[in-house]
Amino acid sequence: MTKLDLNFEPAEQLDLKDLNEHVLKAEYAIRGAIPTRAEQIQDQINLDPESVPFDKITTANIGNPQQLQQKPLTFSRQVVSILQYPELLKHKEILVQSRAYNSDSLDRASILLDKIGGSVGAYSSSQGVQGIRQTVANYITKRDDGEPASPNDIFMTDGATRAVTYLLSLLCRGPQNGVLIPIPQYPLYTASLTLYDTVAIPYYLDEKSGWSTDANEIESEIKKSIENNVKPSVIVVINPGNPTGSILKPEVMEDIVVLAAKYGLVILADEVYQENVFSEERKFYSFKKILRDLQKRHTKLFDNVQLASIHSTSKGVFGECGQRGGYLELIGFKKSVREEILKLASLSICAVITGQAMVDLMVNPPSEGQPSYEMDKNERLHIHNTLKQRGELLYQTFQQLEGIECQKPQGAMYLFPRLYFSQKVINAAKDADLQPDEFYCHALLESTGICVVPGTGFGQEEGTWHLRTTFLAPGTEWIQKWKSFHQEFYKKYAD
Amino acid sequence: MTKLDLNFEPAEQLDLKDLNEHVLKAEYAIRGAIPTRAEQIQDQINLDPESVPFDKITTANIGNPQQLQQKPLTFSRQVVSILQYPELLKHKEILVQSRAYNSDSLDRASILLDKIGGSVGAYSSSQGVQGIRQTVANYITKRDDGEPASPNDIFMTDGATRAVTYLLSLLCRGPQNGVLIPIPQYPLYTASLTLYDTVAIPYYLDEKSGWSTDANEIESEIKKSIENNVKPSVIVVINPGNPTGSILKPEVMEDIVVLAAKYGLVILADEVYQENVFSEERKFYSFKKILRDLQKRHTKLFDNVQLASIHSTSKGVFGECGQRGGYLELIGFKKSVREEILKLASLSICAVITGQAMVDLMVNPPSEGQPSYEMDKNERLHIHNTLKQRGELLYQTFQQLEGIECQKPQGAMYLFPRLYFSQKVINAAKDADLQPDEFYCHALLESTGICVVPGTGFGQEEGTWHLRTTFLAPGTEWIQKWKSFHQEFYKKYAD
Ligand SMILES: Cc1ncc(COP(=O)(O)O)c(C=O)c1O
Ligand SMILES: Cc1ncc(COP(=O)(O)O)c(C=O)c1O
Repeated sequence: MTKLDLNFEPAEQLDLKDLNEHVLKAEYAIRGAIPTRAEQIQDQINLDPESVPFDKITTANIGNPQQLQQKPLTFSRQVVSILQYPELLKHKEILVQSRAYNSDSLDRASILLDKIGGSVGAYSSSQGVQGIRQTVANYITKRDDGEPASPNDIFMTDGATRAVTYLLSLLCRGPQNGVLIPIPQYPLYTASLTLYDTVAIPYYLDEKSGWSTDANEIESEIKKSIENNVKPSVIVVINPGNPTGSILKPEVMEDIVVLAAKYGLVILADEVYQENVFSEERKFYSFKKILRDLQKRHTKLFDNVQLASIHSTSKGVFGECGQRGGYLELIGFKKSVREEILKLASLSICAVITGQAMVDLMVNPPSEGQPSYEMDKNERLHIHNTLKQRGELLYQTFQQLEGIECQKPQGAMYLFPRLYFSQKVINAAKDADLQPDEFYCHALLESTGICVVPGTGFGQEEGTWHLRTTFLAPGTEWIQKWKSFHQEFYKKYAD
Repeated sequence: MTKLDLNFEPAEQLDLKDLNEHVLKAEYAIRGAIPTRAEQIQDQINLDPESVPFDKITTANIGNPQQLQQKPLTFSRQVVSILQYPELLKHKEILVQSRAYNSDSLDRASILLDKIGGSVGAYSSSQGVQGIRQTVANYITKRDDGEPASPNDIFMTDGATRAVTYLLSLLCRGPQNGVLIPIPQYPLYTASLTLYDTVAIPYYLDEKSGWSTDANEIESEIKKSIENNVKPSVIVVINPGNPTGSILKPEVMEDIVVLAAKYGLVILADEVYQENVFSEERKFYSFKKILRDLQKRHTKLFDNVQLASIHSTSKGVFGECGQRGGYLELIGFKKSVREEILKLASLSICAVITGQAMVDLMVNPPSEGQPSYEMDKNERLHIHNTLKQRGELLYQTFQQLEGIECQKPQGAMYLFPRLYFSQKVINAAKDADLQPDEFYCHALLESTGICVVPGTGFGQEEGTWHLRTTFLAPGTEWIQKWKSFHQEFYKKYAD
């Protein structure tokens, strides 16, 4: 029994006004109103399949390949299953004989288990497992034609998301401080800046030239911001782009490095789509490679440039979103600053160990001659080609439709077509208290079950309307449905 | 080639002054100076084993059971290995025959895979897998003698840590706002409050009475705080306690609920050690159970109380720290407030799926009659008893030592003994620019390799000195070493 006096007036429940205002202001459209409505419809389908004019929700709102039946890579899953249950190593013979496992997955699991210290159930060091960071460094070195990388510069994170939050929570200092972000952008960035009460300084990507980036446009934004007493300290670049699907040319990347050197901007290079390159004309260059080349050609000028590059197991051909694997490479930062990143990581104790192992497996596939080599290579190729074809097909469909204009897909897993609406649509949207692109996406969802995200969620030039769709969904049926819906919609709302 | 003018003065690298000041101020001792030094020594041992007077580091600074050879529970690891590699289901017969797997782990894996939607590599909904939240709700209902729990109130998180950061980042509103925390406390709390620029309002636990909590002491802190224009909005309670190892009596918990009702405090109940109960005299009661009982006995008075309870796969007998599994149960919050928590979760997309599965397995072991039942029960019991014995042994050792006073362990996995130091120690510490407990812990590390955390890292009453050690390390050799060290240290520094 409590000894306290019970003669009191109970206090009220918390209300929104009692919460952190920055959290309230943050928005995240990828899981916003339309996806939420889609979840409701899915529940409705489960209860009463006849109540809607389609049999399932097609989730094209989020890059989540394995939700759409993309198969995980066999080798990596074999290895991680052994990490979870190392007793399997004692059954090697029977497992290999029965073709449940390839022998090299068992070998690789032993090596990884050693690196990890024996159990995926133990916390690792906050920076991540040393041996895994070494594998990542080797991968980067190879990717960048021999430019050395060091495990000391690698920080293992729970997905790329966590890397972004560590960086921004350290580098954002409040309303006198700004971060340059591309528009359109992946909404994690605007949401985080709102959370950290720091100014988002938009630089617009140019749709007409395939969503390319213009350094002069960026520099004028920097100058404007400085005039307004907001010091830009970071520039975010997403390459290949989300939601645009574009890939940066090396000369544009050089421009960005120049601006970083001149204005002391940290380059936050979101390179999670580095393997998703579908264009013959474009190649992926890492910002690190571009930076190192500039440093070689120009003594001193680029010595102080600070670059943070992030990568993830969620995308590429791996598509292991739910495993929450990712890493951060820090280049050019002072030791004292790196230690602060490490402190932030240590507050979360460590990144999930199997996610760390997944990163190791993503960047270090079986090598030639090993039993799993051919299988793994073919699986990777198959996924790559499938994604490429799906992007192509959706793009071709959009080409045929009235009122849609779409840039050719170069990379990532998205198309971000522009929509031209009649006055009738604009009025109808207004009546529904929605933006026209939201209105279109709601209508698409309600009549076809296809869930996409309106351009408003990513930012777009005023007076233009877009939507973002992934091209991960298998089959052509959903594309046909979309086509019919679109034609009817445009007929219905013709001026 | 960049088209920009290269005739510029390069900007400086970032310095500490350019970073978020709140991050700089945050401290996290569990992975602070002493553990960092321990890692250096470990590296040194790897290079030159002869260079230090011991052969390994004993990590007693962090509750990380599997780093210290605690075995994971077989059933749960069997299940999760299949989740990672569902192809194993096709080899059921041979796996069961060869005794690599029990048949019920394969069955359970199928059920879980269904719940998850087919692949642990897909993002789940941001709140977590519905079917897993249902399992958690069932567990809570049973634990609390039938008090109903709902999957809608459960949020799956990456370890308990992420649940704490969601809650505090939402509920902390700046320097006019305060959070009551026990002293000593788990330093995640003070560090988070520093990050969110919110006042930590300490309430001291009473060492003499086994680290119990006194409601009058708390109420006077609340009043003082309100007088100083700092509104307390949350009270953190860690039960069983870290670092104290104490377990709260139900009447004290009732007092806390009364204060919560009276002053509108959210109760943040950190109940990650709910299974680590070693005392015959104390039982674990959840805050939810206590709250529901009060609500039944007193109409209306407790209707507005808001409780957030967190749990984790990292502790208990599970000890699956590296899997980063955890959950949050929200009770009594308005819908609008819950939606903000969900928004924060959606910014991180979702908790790692295998961690979510681990929570399911932790709270829902094989049931009687299933092939794995006996094995799982025995493994759980064995770990429980081992921990109990280790705690007991360390406690007995401390009882024998001069200058140490230790409360009897009731729960969790720590002892937090008080150290009495001579003036000589205090002076020597001062010369080394350390607190006396830091000085002792450094000396302990350098001569024995035993890594513990000084009381300063958790907070302690002024003029008192403590240290926190886990009792997870196996064997008695390290305890003997500690004993010898302690005796020599006290001899050396006798006044
Ligand atoms: C550009 C970009 N960055 C980061 C992420 C986060 O990915 P994850 O946290 O799953 O690694 C995504 C996910 O879609 C993304 O599109
Ligand atoms: C009291 C307390 N809360 C929370 C945690 C965080 O645990 P995790 O994030 O591993 O679930 C710990 C870890 O030691 C703890 O002791």
